[in-house]
Amino acid sequence: MTKILVINGPNLSYLGKRQPELYGTTTAAELDDMLRAHAAGNGYELEIFYTHVEGHAIERVYQAVERGVDALVMNPAGMTYAGYAMRDCLLAVAPDLPYVEAHITHIERLGKRSVTAEPSIGMIFGFGVKGYILGLDAALMHLGRK
Amino acid sequence: MTKILVINGPNLSYLGKRQPELYGTTTAAELDDMLRAHAAGNGYELEIFYTHVEGHAIERVYQAVERGVDALVMNPAGMTYAGYAMRDCLLAVAPDLPYVEAHITHIERLGKRSVTAEPSIGMIFGFGVKGYILGLDAALMHLGRK
Amino acid sequence: MTKILVINGPNLSYLGKRQPELYGTTTAAELDDMLRAHAAGNGYELEIFYTHVEGHAIERVYQAVERGVDALVMNPAGMTYAGYAMRDCLLAVAPDLPYVEAHITHIERLGKRSVTAEPSIGMIFGFGVKGYILGLDAALMHLGRK
Amino acid sequence: MTKILVINGPNLSYLGKRQPELYGTTTAAELDDMLRAHAAGNGYELEIFYTHVEGHAIERVYQAVERGVDALVMNPAGMTYAGYAMRDCLLAVAPDLPYVEAHITHIERLGKRSVTAEPSIGMIFGFGVKGYILGLDAALMHLGRK
Amino acid sequence: MTKILVINGPNLSYLGKRQPELYGTTTAAELDDMLRAHAAGNGYELEIFYTHVEGHAIERVYQAVERGVDALVMNPAGMTYAGYAMRDCLLAVAPDLPYVEAHITHIERLGKRSVTAEPSIGMIFGFGVKGYILGLDAALMHLGRK
Amino acid sequence: MTKILVINGPNLSYLGKRQPELYGTTTAAELDDMLRAHAAGNGYELEIFYTHVEGHAIERVYQAVERGVDALVMNPAGMTYAGYAMRDCLLAVAPDLPYVEAHITHIERLGKRSVTAEPSIGMIFGFGVKGYILGLDAALMHLGRK
Amino acid sequence: MTKILVINGPNLSYLGKRQPELYGTTTAAELDDMLRAHAAGNGYELEIFYTHVEGHAIERVYQAVERGVDALVMNPAGMTYAGYAMRDCLLAVAPDLPYVEAHITHIERLGKRSVTAEPSIGMIFGFGVKGYILGLDAALMHLGRK
Amino acid sequence: MTKILVINGPNLSYLGKRQPELYGTTTAAELDDMLRAHAAGNGYELEIFYTHVEGHAIERVYQAVERGVDALVMNPAGMTYAGYAMRDCLLAVAPDLPYVEAHITHIERLGKRSVTAEPSIGMIFGFGVKGYILGLDAALMHLGRK
Amino acid sequence: MTKILVINGPNLSYLGKRQPELYGTTTAAELDDMLRAHAAGNGYELEIFYTHVEGHAIERVYQAVERGVDALVMNPAGMTYAGYAMRDCLLAVAPDLPYVEAHITHIERLGKRSVTAEPSIGMIFGFGVKGYILGLDAALMHLGRK
Amino acid sequence: MTKILVINGPNLSYLGKRQPELYGTTTAAELDDMLRAHAAGNGYELEIFYTHVEGHAIERVYQAVERGVDALVMNPAGMTYAGYAMRDCLLAVAPDLPYVEAHITHIERLGKRSVTAEPSIGMIFGFGVKGYILGLDAALMHLGRK
Amino acid sequence: MTKILVINGPNLSYLGKRQPELYGTTTAAELDDMLRAHAAGNGYELEIFYTHVEGHAIERVYQAVERGVDALVMNPAGMTYAGYAMRDCLLAVAPDLPYVEAHITHIERLGKRSVTAEPSIGMIFGFGVKGYILGLDAALMHLGRK
Amino acid sequence: MTKILVINGPNLSYLGKRQPELYGTTTAAELDDMLRAHAAGNGYELEIFYTHVEGHAIERVYQAVERGVDALVMNPAGMTYAGYAMRDCLLAVAPDLPYVEAHITHIERLGKRSVTAEPSIGMIFGFGVKGYILGLDAALMHLGRK
Repeated sequence: MTKILVINGPNLSYLGKRQPELYGTTTAAELDDMLRAHAAGNGYELEIFYTHVEGHAIERVYQAVERGVDALVMNPAGMTYAGYAMRDCLLAVAPDLPYVEAHITHIERLGKRSVTAEPSIGMIFGFGVKGYILGLDAALMHLGRK
Repeated sequence: MTKILVINGPNLSYLGKRQPELYGTTTAAELDDMLRAHAAGNGYELEIFYTHVEGHAIERVYQAVERGVDALVMNPAGMTYAGYAMRDCLLAVAPDLPYVEAHITHIERLGKRSVTAEPSIGMIFGFGVKGYILGLDAALMHLGRK
Repeated sequence: MTKILVINGPNLSYLGKRQPELYGTTTAAELDDMLRAHAAGNGYELEIFYTHVEGHAIERVYQAVERGVDALVMNPAGMTYAGYAMRDCLLAVAPDLPYVEAHITHIERLGKRSVTAEPSIGMIFGFGVKGYILGLDAALMHLGRK
Repeated sequence: MTKILVINGPNLSYLGKRQPELYGTTTAAELDDMLRAHAAGNGYELEIFYTHVEGHAIERVYQAVERGVDALVMNPAGMTYAGYAMRDCLLAVAPDLPYVEAHITHIERLGKRSVTAEPSIGMIFGFGVKGYILGLDAALMHLGRK
Repeated sequence: MTKILVINGPNLSYLGKRQPELYGTTTAAELDDMLRAHAAGNGYELEIFYTHVEGHAIERVYQAVERGVDALVMNPAGMTYAGYAMRDCLLAVAPDLPYVEAHITHIERLGKRSVTAEPSIGMIFGFGVKGYILGLDAALMHLGRK
Repeated sequence: MTKILVINGPNLSYLGKRQPELYGTTTAAELDDMLRAHAAGNGYELEIFYTHVEGHAIERVYQAVERGVDALVMNPAGMTYAGYAMRDCLLAVAPDLPYVEAHITHIERLGKRSVTAEPSIGMIFGFGVKGYILGLDAALMHLGRK
Repeated sequence: MTKILVINGPNLSYLGKRQPELYGTTTAAELDDMLRAHAAGNGYELEIFYTHVEGHAIERVYQAVERGVDALVMNPAGMTYAGYAMRDCLLAVAPDLPYVEAHITHIERLGKRSVTAEPSIGMIFGFGVKGYILGLDAALMHLGRK
Repeated sequence: MTKILVINGPNLSYLGKRQPELYGTTTAAELDDMLRAHAAGNGYELEIFYTHVEGHAIERVYQAVERGVDALVMNPAGMTYAGYAMRDCLLAVAPDLPYVEAHITHIERLGKRSVTAEPSIGMIFGFGVKGYILGLDAALMHLGRK
Repeated sequence: MTKILVINGPNLSYLGKRQPELYGTTTAAELDDMLRAHAAGNGYELEIFYTHVEGHAIERVYQAVERGVDALVMNPAGMTYAGYAMRDCLLAVAPDLPYVEAHITHIERLGKRSVTAEPSIGMIFGFGVKGYILGLDAALMHLGRK
Repeated sequence: MTKILVINGPNLSYLGKRQPELYGTTTAAELDDMLRAHAAGNGYELEIFYTHVEGHAIERVYQAVERGVDALVMNPAGMTYAGYAMRDCLLAVAPDLPYVEAHITHIERLGKRSVTAEPSIGMIFGFGVKGYILGLDAALMHLGRK
Repeated sequence: MTKILVINGPNLSYLGKRQPELYGTTTAAELDDMLRAHAAGNGYELEIFYTHVEGHAIERVYQAVERGVDALVMNPAGMTYAGYAMRDCLLAVAPDLPYVEAHITHIERLGKRSVTAEPSIGMIFGFGVKGYILGLDAALMHLGRK
Repeated sequence: MTKILVINGPNLSYLGKRQPELYGTTTAAELDDMLRAHAAGNGYELEIFYTHVEGHAIERVYQAVERGVDALVMNPAGMTYAGYAMRDCLLAVAPDLPYVEAHITHIERLGKRSVTAEPSIGMIFGFGVKGYILGLDAALMHLGRK
């Protein structure tokens, strides 16, 4: 069965509690439900991992490769600006773990550059939490399962 | 019935004929079929417009607004780098014509900035021609029809 | 009789329909009436040309020189950012066709640079559509007819 | 009766005596006559103030607000490059004292940026001393008196 | 009773042991005593948190909001240069948790920019460890308790 | 008896009259009262000097040194951007006249750099007019009188 | 028989009429005669295409590939600065349609960069209209016909 | 007995598993054996520490100073780009803990700058895993033990 | 009789009192004596003018031209960084009043650029107060009187 | 009889021995034969000079002027990046010794700027060793001998 | 027998005579002895070449390749900043003559970039003259002889 | 007896033969006579050295130190832009051989930076060949012999 890992970077556990004009009102718990419904509807196994510590996210990526996870959808959040160690990690596992980068906000319009974008197969941003659904669809399409 | 306009900017009529390592082997005709199938499957009306001339694309956008088109999915292609007139056009119609920007290539990894990105509601790139499907899905989600 | 050509660049045919906080509520038709009233009041012949295509504006400038037009007042609009071909055109005809550049918005405050400014005899911006009247006055003064 | 203040910044008292290729041959005295004739012809009260000291110009602006002057037309001259204190002053009085910035030379072509431009309602430059007349007309139009 | 959290970022637990020409000779323990004396003297509850790990500091900030802490005084130290995730965290909680940024050294003279400065209500630096006292006073003043 | 000089740079005599969203509603007169109350409460002699002219502020600094003033608290205001002559002046007197720089606004968030910051012993900004009180406290602490 | 296409970009139809100090006195008609004489003398078929509209030049290039043209010699003229769509077009056809870029003026000395230079096999500039002859010779040499 | 600490930063525990064209095929375990053999052959005590978390590496450095370690050889890896907190840490302990920086790859040719380089006594890079041996030799030479 | 004006810009009246490592120990009074001795020895008339206010220096330059002064030797001091108004003044009088710029310090080594350098006939710096003597010699040589 | 000097800068004596993908397989000796054949065929006298030392190339240029050489064709090679002394030399002799700059590689595509380009009458690059033939033709055309 | 060439660039013949705080007190003669001892101890043939002239160093490199030298260790010294011709030379011989770059000083901390670094297999700097020994060891390791 | 060395860098042997608008009409021979007359008049020994090769100039500087020359006056000419090796040489001998840098042209107005300026005690430029006389006077003053 296809396995996909979703990583939510620094600050995302706080989702939906503040700055709704930027991030919307969906809470982290509601987001998780939405993603699990998508997994159920599309028949794949889903893991969701939240962390404020970049090093822990890196460890999780290496574990995923070892445990045969098929694809990664990540919102780097607080790692967007200076997550160079994460970028090196994703470059190292790139051929084996296809990576889709998704952001809730329109990072281009906010003038942000993502340092983790380079190893991604593609990027999706600006569509709010729906971007996660589009990102999972993109991962499934990439794996030839949609 | 929901109406969506797809604009393919300069050079895209040539799609699939050259540089497959960048743009894939799908031809413009095959792409059109793929998009029409999606429209049929999702029950919306689709118009596709190709042009090498930025001014003609601008005219088409203003017509679309007047004719009640609901959303625009555009691959600015050759307008990506200096299509400032198109950007102003999209800013002018922004509240009425939601715009999704899609690129076949991973423009971030190629080091390109898109000058038309600013008025878009969101961006999708790097997934090859599948990015058009994701873009149309994003537009439908934005319109609350998916 | 003195002849003045007014060129309105990309997007200006849409004037007054959107973004009134930037461009005001005067429509293109009302602007034309205002300009024609000024021409009548000051006794000169006026031509007004709208286009979204830079190349067509360039052709119009060369025609104007051949047909003995005395001065050009232009709002480069969408050509402001990258209209280098228009700039070269204006440099080529500079001694024969004095050029006044006018913008509706305060381009300096918006952080824009105009690439077509170099060949102009002078610039006027920030005064809304009244800037056209001031531009025509400036052209007449330059020609010694006011 | 409408009151307009004209401020001529550092070096302008020397106008017409040197660098005619840049500034023309009109002297400061002749310029004053020209401006007073315009005031008489248009029925408003005119004050003209020359200074080489930015701080004195700032004082004059605050006095103007207190004495009910309706508009300011200023050629910042030597304050163009680093007159940040003047800019802050103009920002402070902006809603009450509309400001038109005028330059004799084409500052854009000379590669200059004006730090006092931001609080202006609009700018006029490149038309020689006629720019003062256009600037006063612009002020009158802005006040709805022309 | 008013509650204030003081966070000391990476390397500050080492305070007073080295580079006294930059950071002075007060040790972390002596600094804590000084801050506690100030809390006692001014009648508020004080928590002090040291960490070398940005993610842990972020967690602490979210906890503080949930536990009703009134204000945060932080020396970002090693997070000054690239603590973007912390900055996003502080932006997220900004309206509820007023933040005063304090540095022991004169960061401006050292040519440093602080990426966490943006969400702060104000900054104090250059006064050595006395800057913490001034920062706490500023927080109390901001809360209207001094 | 300890003597402290407060200098308020260009535009500050206008304080409280405009742009309250930036500078608050405290007038210059009220600020002076607040500062004098602090001086009385802390037992030091206070001089306050307002000027729009940088050269006059420089003269005042040299006089202060000659008359044995113990410390300077200054809001450079309009000198913040290009007050290089003031900076050289402060560097020249630095060992004898400790200087605390205070701003009402959060200059870092506004993207401003202060050219007079270099010779200061420390900086305080963002706390509104309370920053003057914090600055005077910082000066007293520096002199060992608090 | 070898077929070569010459494209003359925006403003070149005006050649020889103005700015002789930059572009010389040869008119477009005389240039065409010179090129046709070279074609006759070297036994190849020559097409010459003038346009002010970048999109039309792009269409012409695609047609040329389809019609078996062997090489392209182009003076991008007004497309030199921002002709990114043309550059993408030339990159797309690069292996099949060798491209020689020629300019009348010494663009390096004028401080210009050509955005269409990247896909060219080589560049020639500074030699006036003789650069076209050198460019055609270079194309013939590249094709092994000289 | 001389004690040397080797720190391997983020991603290095994964060494030898991927990107052999960049990092070679030596695994982390083989590297450790190689380093221990060098320690045995040169008669010094060796500690090796791997971590993905910068804060943990910082803690380890402070412990090393307290436990009397003589020198540090570190490959900052993922901390190379933004490890400012580590840099401050190394600056703080610089006189007591000499630091040699070693990289497997030729960081200069890859266009990378190391933010942790400043406090190092010297740098070695480009020689693959042999760079660790050279780095340990450099540390021993610096300590006067080789 | 030849007349030379020496202007000493902001802060120079304080010369010799502080920062001797930068400016030496010669006081302003001693410098004046040195310059007067040179004037006596070389048979020319000397005026020396000190000011902290740029606008006053500008007035003095215009007066000098009107009173037939033959040359200007100036140490712009605090005007070095942003004395644009002075630069425009010197450009205006350039043909009539040859200007030699002299600095006590080696401004190039200090990384300073002088904005008043452009209108000077030449520059001398780094030789301490002897630079004034060399500057006066240069002025005399330029006037053909040495 | 027309005399042309060809200078081949640093590293060109090594031509054809290495990096054929960049410089081709033609050796320096074969290149010389090719150039001599061209000279014979076109009836002019040819000198070829190779050197690794910029100063020696400069001497050779001055000698050429004194000995009446008509034109210079140079491949600056290793002088391309920092040959400022050569550039000054060529500027000094520019009116007497017309200079054509030729490169084997496409320096624009390689991202190189040539510091010796400014004094050239024109440039040719990208065509491999055939660029020398085109350069000699350009020189002959410039001299009116072709 | 293995042959290694050491090149010491401009100014190194002066080593040990001045600036000991930067370059140490070892003279060029003592350095040579140290290197020869290393060669004797490790059983390889050593050549040492000093020059102030880049062109001569280039010649020496080409000779080395022709005479079968196995590796080059070079301190580019004065060629570090602008030795582009040397860099091209080293790129040309790169596959045959492995190159190790060594510097006495810590060039990264001094803010220097080495233009000759690109063709090196690796770099060593900051360790004083011991860097030569480490460089020779690195070369021997690279050749598989250590 | 005081000994001064004058070095004239690349291209200066050609002085007076071309570009008189930049360098004047004095030939190298006439300049030498002028300098020798100054030496005779001031009672010091003068050596003049011309070279196009930076490495030779460097050798000459080291010889000068060894032979007890008291000061160096140099016009770096072609070494101005990239003479980094010469700069390092001058830094090395700085305490023993005071260096005055002189240029014929006004390098600041020409927008040039001199890389050899850093080790100079002072600079003189813009005064034509008279700058050499001023430079020699400056050297004598520095040595306390004038």
